[in-house]
Amino acid sequence: MSTPLGPPVTVVVGAGLVGASIGHALTGAGWRVHLVDDVPSHAVVAAGLGAGSASPADPAEVGLVVVAVPPRAIADVVGECLQTYPTATVTDVGSVKAGVLDALWERPVDLTRYVGSHPMAGSHHSGPVTADGELFVDRTWVVTPHRKSSEAATAQVVELVHACRARLVTLDVDDHDAAVARVSHLPHLVSVLMAGHLTNVAEEDLVLAGQGLRDVTRIAGGDPGLWQQIVRANSTAVLRELRQVAVSLDRLITAVETPTDPALGRELERGVDGTRRIPGKHGAAPVPYAQVVVAIPDEPGALARLFGDVEGAGVNVEDIAIEHDASRQVGYLTLSVQPVRAESLAVVMREGGWTVV
Amino acid sequence: MSTPLGPPVTVVVGAGLVGASIGHALTGAGWRVHLVDDVPSHAVVAAGLGAGSASPADPAEVGLVVVAVPPRAIADVVGECLQTYPTATVTDVGSVKAGVLDALWERPVDLTRYVGSHPMAGSHHSGPVTADGELFVDRTWVVTPHRKSSEAATAQVVELVHACRARLVTLDVDDHDAAVARVSHLPHLVSVLMAGHLTNVAEEDLVLAGQGLRDVTRIAGGDPGLWQQIVRANSTAVLRELRQVAVSLDRLITAVETPTDPALGRELERGVDGTRRIPGKHGAAPVPYAQVVVAIPDEPGALARLFGDVEGAGVNVEDIAIEHDASRQVGYLTLSVQPVRAESLAVVMREGGWTVV
Repeated sequence: MSTPLGPPVTVVVGAGLVGASIGHALTGAGWRVHLVDDVPSHAVVAAGLGAGSASPADPAEVGLVVVAVPPRAIADVVGECLQTYPTATVTDVGSVKAGVLDALWERPVDLTRYVGSHPMAGSHHSGPVTADGELFVDRTWVVTPHRKSSEAATAQVVELVHACRARLVTLDVDDHDAAVARVSHLPHLVSVLMAGHLTNVAEEDLVLAGQGLRDVTRIAGGDPGLWQQIVRANSTAVLRELRQVAVSLDRLITAVETPTDPALGRELERGVDGTRRIPGKHGAAPVPYAQVVVAIPDEPGALARLFGDVEGAGVNVEDIAIEHDASRQVGYLTLSVQPVRAESLAVVMREGGWTVV
Repeated sequence: MSTPLGPPVTVVVGAGLVGASIGHALTGAGWRVHLVDDVPSHAVVAAGLGAGSASPADPAEVGLVVVAVPPRAIADVVGECLQTYPTATVTDVGSVKAGVLDALWERPVDLTRYVGSHPMAGSHHSGPVTADGELFVDRTWVVTPHRKSSEAATAQVVELVHACRARLVTLDVDDHDAAVARVSHLPHLVSVLMAGHLTNVAEEDLVLAGQGLRDVTRIAGGDPGLWQQIVRANSTAVLRELRQVAVSLDRLITAVETPTDPALGRELERGVDGTRRIPGKHGAAPVPYAQVVVAIPDEPGALARLFGDVEGAGVNVEDIAIEHDASRQVGYLTLSVQPVRAESLAVVMREGGWTVV
C-alpha cells in the first residue's frame, strides 16, 4: 500500500494517447510513473517525450496501476495487475464499466483494490506522440466504485483524478454505463447512421454539403474497431436508446407525411430544447449573459459608429440582437456580454453619447 | 432590361442576414442596390450599415430583383416582383426550389424572367446587423434555371453569383431539391432526433456530455419555424431519405442485438466511408497531403527535439502518425503536410541531422 505521505509509485499500462497523457500529467505533478506497453517502443517513445520511465517498477513498491488498454483487453489486464502488484490499487480508463467488473467478479482476485474510472477526454489522434498532460484539465473524469471497493482504493483513484486536474464525478457502475450510452454511444451511432447514408449519395450532390453535415458526421470518422468494442461492451444500454430513437424517427416520418400536422413543429422545438439542455463547455453550466441595450439613432452610419465604440470598449460581445419599434422607426441593439463586463460596457457607451436603456 | 454595359440596378427584397449580405457584396462590387423590407426599419438599418439604399427604386430602371424572404412567402413575392418590375430578372434565395416554381407556373406572370437560386451560406444569427459582404465568398451558390427561363435571365443571375464571389453550381430544380434533402435537410432532422432525445436524459447524465454530442446536435438549435417551412416545402424528397434511414436504423439495431454479427463492424466502417466522401471545406476536393517520414533515434528527448525542429521549419503539420519497427526498436514519424511544403520540410530536417526516409 502506498504511504499517505506522498503520491504513490504508479504504473501506467498502455502508452497510447490516454495512458501517455496520464503519464505526462502525473510526472508533471511530481509522481513517479513507470510505463508499460505490449509494444515496448511505445513505452520508450512515451518515456522519451516525458511521460515517465520505461524501466520496470518494483511490484512491491507500486501503489497505483492505471490500465489504459483497448476495451476488450481491460478485464484480463486488470486481473493480471491485481496479481502482479500485490498491494496496489488498480483502475482502468475504459468507457464502459459493468462488463469489466462482471468479468472480474468471477475470478480469484482481490477486488477491494479495483476501482474503475473513465476520463471523458480523447482526440482523433491516438498515439503517444500526441499525448498531452493537459488533456484532462477541467474535463469530467468519472470514478465508479463498486460494493467490494475499499475506501482507500477509491481515495487513491480520486487522488489520480485530482493530480490530472480533471473534474471528479462519482457514479455507480450501471448508472455510468446508462449515462454514456445516452450522451456518447448513441450520438456516435446516430452520426454513423447519417455518415453511412452518404455512401449512397452522388458526388455531385455532396458538393452542396455545408458545415452542418460535417458537424453531424464528424465523430462517425472514429476508429470502427474501438467503437465496435465499446458498443458491444454496452449493448444493453445502447439498444434501449437506439430503440427509443427508432420510435422517435417513426413519429417524425408520420409528422412529415401529414402536411398540416403540428407534430413536425413540436419535433423541431423538441430538438432546440434538447440542445439547450447540454451544459456549456467543459461541463460548466451554460453561462447566463448580461444584456446591455442601446438605442440606435435613426441616422446614416449610426450602427457602424456604435459597433466601433463597442469594440473600443474592449468587451467581448457574446451575442447581438436588434429589435425595432416600428411605430417610432427606432431600433434597439441588445449586446450580450459576460455579467462582470456589463456595467463597464454601459459606462463606456454612455460616455460615448449613446442612450443605454 | 439592364444594359450589358454595367451591372444592373438591383432591388433586394428582405433585409435579413442573406438579403443584407447580398446588398453588402453587390454594393462592394460597385452595383447600385435598393433595399426593401416589410419592416422598413430593417431596410434602414441594413442601408445604414452599407448594404445599399433604403430609398425606392424606379421600377423601369431595375434590372435584377433578389427575393430574400422566408420560404413560405417566396412564391407570392416573386410573382409580385415580376409584375412590379416589368423588365427585371427576378431570382430568389430559398433553399427549396420546386414548390416555388410550381406555385408560379399557374399564375399569369412572365416566367422567362424568373430563375431560382440558392446560396449555401448562413449563420445562426439572422438579422441585418450580422450581415457580411464576404458571406458567400467561395461558398456554393446553386442556380436552377427551368425550361421557360430566358438565357438572358439566367446570365443575369450567374452575374449576381459571380459578383458575390460564390462558387457557381447549375442544377435542375428537382435535382437541387433531392440533393439538399440528402446533404442538408436530412442531417438537420437527424440532429433534431438526437437533440430531442436529450429532453428525456437526466441532468446528471448530461454532465458527461462531450464535444461529440455538441457537434451532432449543433444544427438542431436552428430556427424551428424556418425549418418547418423548409421541410414542408421539400417533404417528398425528405421523406424518401428519412425512410431509408429508418431501414438503416433497424439494420443497426439487429446488428447490435446479435453479439457475434459482423454487421456492426460493417455499419461502423460504412460511417467512416461516408465521412470520407464529404468534400473539403468550401466544397473543394479533400486535400491530399504529402508525407515526410523521419526516423526517430532511440535516445531520450529525441522526439521533443524533432518536434522543435519541425516547428522551426515553419511548416504547418496537418497530421502526424508514428510507426514502430519492433524488431529494431526504432520508430518512424510520418508528418502530413501540404504537398508544396513537403520538399522544404525534408530539406530542413536533413539539414538538422535527421534521417528522412
